[in-house]
Amino acid sequence: MKKDLGVQTAVFPMPVLMIASYDENGKVDVMNAAWGTICGTDKIALCISEGHKTFANIRKSGAFTVSLADTAHVREADYFGIASGNKTDDKFERTGMKAVPSSRVNAPIVEDFPIAMECELCDVVKTEHFHAVIGRIVNVVADEDVQDADGQIDASKLNAICFDPFRHLYYAVGDAVGAAWSCGKELL
Amino acid sequence: MKKDLGVQTAVFPMPVLMIASYDENGKVDVMNAAWGTICGTDKIALCISEGHKTFANIRKSGAFTVSLADTAHVREADYFGIASGNKTDDKFERTGMKAVPSSRVNAPIVEDFPIAMECELCDVVKTEHFHAVIGRIVNVVADEDVQDADGQIDASKLNAICFDPFRHLYYAVGDAVGAAWSCGKELL
Repeated sequence: MKKDLGVQTAVFPMPVLMIASYDENGKVDVMNAAWGTICGTDKIALCISEGHKTFANIRKSGAFTVSLADTAHVREADYFGIASGNKTDDKFERTGMKAVPSSRVNAPIVEDFPIAMECELCDVVKTEHFHAVIGRIVNVVADEDVQDADGQIDASKLNAICFDPFRHLYYAVGDAVGAAWSCGKELL
Repeated sequence: MKKDLGVQTAVFPMPVLMIASYDENGKVDVMNAAWGTICGTDKIALCISEGHKTFANIRKSGAFTVSLADTAHVREADYFGIASGNKTDDKFERTGMKAVPSSRVNAPIVEDFPIAMECELCDVVKTEHFHAVIGRIVNVVADEDVQDADGQIDASKLNAICFDPFRHLYYAVGDAVGAAWSCGKELL
């Protein structure tokens, strides 16, 4: 018998998405968002509110990149979620991280994170119950040392972290426990 | 210097969401979806396409529950992603799992998973680039053994799994590596 816990945002694990954009002066801004998902084979939805500097930046620049936070940069990733680009002029600089311009979209790529999606803004969806920035993923870039021998991303090498919405912790990802579209076949 | 990998759905970790609904005859259906996110303090967005039995069910019943798949049920969770409720009459029954009616919404709760959100359909959003079912989370139910002494969910006890979109594997969640809205404060 399960117990009632009231209204909670009980999705776990949540990704720790690092959204990078340029402001109106070409300055790099990065924010931390857990409320985001892939929503198509080349699309990502980020449920970020309109007050964020990042939202204004993306509206103006029409682009952003999304990196995955890793265990080596938990502190920086968390800082990107605490500090506001609206209030802190040198938000990105304080971390000592480096960014380079994407060659495909008008947005920065944070060098220190292992992987990034380069995205073009394709829609801002706003209804009574839902608000999101929708991006078209035009390319993914990644460090060589997170790829396997075939050049595919080896997720275990990303050292990605995830967010726990219950007690507000970051967790590492553990071991592989099964193959998708495969281990359940015996029940077919 | 990062390498180009082309268009990929590079969000990791992705949750493994178990969406449970009743069909037009009151039969339990469960599907596996990784493309979903919290999108408000009491809202969840599920990016599932219109062809799914689950989509038709939710349209008719106006409700669903979302459980989190765990390591003890990787095989069943994967099966829910392979088998189609449109083609398999006894999709849920084959797993040997048990479901009970939610006391709050017109949807089943799968007993075998440790936690479930009870959701009312509040919107179906469809634009050129985005399609999602939006649910209002009216309550969360969980097993006592995944709660800490204060009754809060201890995420480490959920034994939740996540989905790797690169090589199509399921991973366990590892150790806690930091406190959110806290470990980054020293950079402020």
